[in-house]
Amino acid sequence: MLLAEHAEPDQAGWTRRVFSPAYLESRQVVADLMAASGLEVSRDAAGNLLGQLPGAEPDLPSLVIGSHTDTVAGGGRFDGMVGVVAAIEVARRLQAEGTGLWHPLRVVDFLGEEPNRFGLSCLGSRAVTGHLDPAHLQLRDGSGITLGEALVGVGARPESIQSARWPEKSIHGYIELHIEQGARLERAGRRLGVVSGIVGIHRARVELIGRPDHAGTTPMGGRLDAIQAAAQVILGIDRIGRRHEGAEGVATVGQITVEPNSPNVVAARATLVAELRSLDAEWLAQGDEQVAALVAQVAAGTGVVAELAWVSQESPVACHPTMRRLLAQAVRELGAEPLEVASGASHDAAHLARLGPMGMLFIPSLGGRSHCPEEWTEPEQVALGTSALLQAVRAVDRAQL
Amino acid sequence: MLLAEHAEPDQAGWTRRVFSPAYLESRQVVADLMAASGLEVSRDAAGNLLGQLPGAEPDLPSLVIGSHTDTVAGGGRFDGMVGVVAAIEVARRLQAEGTGLWHPLRVVDFLGEEPNRFGLSCLGSRAVTGHLDPAHLQLRDGSGITLGEALVGVGARPESIQSARWPEKSIHGYIELHIEQGARLERAGRRLGVVSGIVGIHRARVELIGRPDHAGTTPMGGRLDAIQAAAQVILGIDRIGRRHEGAEGVATVGQITVEPNSPNVVAARATLVAELRSLDAEWLAQGDEQVAALVAQVAAGTGVVAELAWVSQESPVACHPTMRRLLAQAVRELGAEPLEVASGASHDAAHLARLGPMGMLFIPSLGGRSHCPEEWTEPEQVALGTSALLQAVRAVDRAQL
Repeated sequence: MLLAEHAEPDQAGWTRRVFSPAYLESRQVVADLMAASGLEVSRDAAGNLLGQLPGAEPDLPSLVIGSHTDTVAGGGRFDGMVGVVAAIEVARRLQAEGTGLWHPLRVVDFLGEEPNRFGLSCLGSRAVTGHLDPAHLQLRDGSGITLGEALVGVGARPESIQSARWPEKSIHGYIELHIEQGARLERAGRRLGVVSGIVGIHRARVELIGRPDHAGTTPMGGRLDAIQAAAQVILGIDRIGRRHEGAEGVATVGQITVEPNSPNVVAARATLVAELRSLDAEWLAQGDEQVAALVAQVAAGTGVVAELAWVSQESPVACHPTMRRLLAQAVRELGAEPLEVASGASHDAAHLARLGPMGMLFIPSLGGRSHCPEEWTEPEQVALGTSALLQAVRAVDRAQL
Repeated sequence: MLLAEHAEPDQAGWTRRVFSPAYLESRQVVADLMAASGLEVSRDAAGNLLGQLPGAEPDLPSLVIGSHTDTVAGGGRFDGMVGVVAAIEVARRLQAEGTGLWHPLRVVDFLGEEPNRFGLSCLGSRAVTGHLDPAHLQLRDGSGITLGEALVGVGARPESIQSARWPEKSIHGYIELHIEQGARLERAGRRLGVVSGIVGIHRARVELIGRPDHAGTTPMGGRLDAIQAAAQVILGIDRIGRRHEGAEGVATVGQITVEPNSPNVVAARATLVAELRSLDAEWLAQGDEQVAALVAQVAAGTGVVAELAWVSQESPVACHPTMRRLLAQAVRELGAEPLEVASGASHDAAHLARLGPMGMLFIPSLGGRSHCPEEWTEPEQVALGTSALLQAVRAVDRAQL
């Protein structure tokens, strides 16, 4: 709630996009809160905000907790923010209680996790794994500004971006608390979820090229109708999403653009984006093949020219099995029964998994709503999530992972 | 070709939309051509350009020929223009040959036949039938200008629009020469077509209202996906267009808009326009029922809320049987075999049919292309069409209709 005051004035909801002045201001608030909670604050070359708490054994790798504080346009007040604020609160309590950890604790507010105008999400968490490279810094937005230039504006130092990188296996573990952004906890009547893994996302651009004929003078049999072909692809993608072959996933067409998009002209071109998500790499691989077969079949059946391009093919990331066990145990110690859930959205945690054992805790989202002003989690649910994170940090600190 | 010099400079093709300066200029060229061809030129309150040639019997009703000279955005050089230029040429030849008609001849360049930014086509031909009324004059474009105000800008006098009206049965007949805008003449290898009738056009707006869920966290079974519902409607409309129950027609979805139209959000809303066209009123009426049943069935099957609204339901207009016979005979006298074709597009002629016997002649469109810069008819085909129009005018002048 603290950060909700820092919102872009001309946007709906609580909007604080990564390169906005509102975001820049709000991170000073986060830095102040870190400092007031006894953390030693620093900023790395990638614009990540770091808060360190020393451990009893300074030579041990750090235990890392955190999330992000940027939002999508028209976003809410919980996605990302609860993870950062809860991590700072955990550090504060550990200090206040005088019950230190063996491992150093590192609290992180990762830069720009949400999709942005450069088409690259999870900027900060990519950078710490060494996956934000010079080519990415040359990405341009619609007005020609490069990502590198925009990064300077939020206090990052793109020229030394490699210095933000953490060595492989340099962390004891990473734990992220986040809202579910779905309604499975709510439907199951559970207050806490332990994430089994983060889905892989495969995204394809399908271009269907027909012929712009007069809709009045061109008989049905003489048309190359891109919108008809698109409708066949849309229904086919739905069937691919509903198949169950051991595993499960979802398939969505959420975007379609038609040209000339005029009621009396047979559509010349339809472009749609199809997205597959699953925890199961095999399900995704089969899905990719089925999408390709579907598009080829629609092209053959309609005469419309079809082009398929995979825009991204991110693999699923499993949470570390010992982490999952320790997190579930921490939840039970608070008197709650955890629900094991897959994360259908991606998170900074998916990138951190490259560096060491990763685990995630979910708290409920009212009605499953997210990325909208109506996004809501009850204060006592946030408080319980924070306690679970503290309990988990203590357990993971003592564990051999 | 004469008019092609008068095109809007910032538009593709030969664009001369009804309220553009290019259109206003070009009509002075038409008026000059009428005068040079011996016609007495006048402009009515609706902005129509009229050229009169007296007949041997001044008390007889007029025989009317003409078309329009405005274009769509990105249009061509033939749709409409050939009908006006040929009509003027017919008047010139009648004068030059000294072979007058019994009936007065009226050549008309009807104002604004194409769709415009006020959503009302055939402005001039509606006005002469008394169907451009004060309510239409209050229609506003996107910037708040009324149709009445725009009419003033093209030299019309909207305050006395009723004076442009011609009494019922006040004309001996109306003949319009036009390009086919389809490829049936070309495919049949014929040079001239006699139109059997002008299709009726029924246009429906279908609104499908789902729920904007996260495409990653919402399982397939828990979605209200507006784009999936739209795809079912699109395929259903195609099936309705392909049915043959004695008559024939076409059904098209050429326009769809999706919200939020984001790859990772289940579509909350899809709006599409479905269009049915047929010469057969019964086929259209059955089609309307089938569209309503389809939309209801998709709503019931998907859970998406569906709203259907008929935006327009124009009836088909048959060409006058005696006209058709006389026009076919005129074509044969030129040594050509006419093809009987329906007009899949609407024309000023559809409105003129309210006032008296109506007939239309078609000349070929290369590849059936129209409403685009590639629109083309060979000069000798235009010349043959003009001769057929002259022959038809002579025959209709002598006939009892």
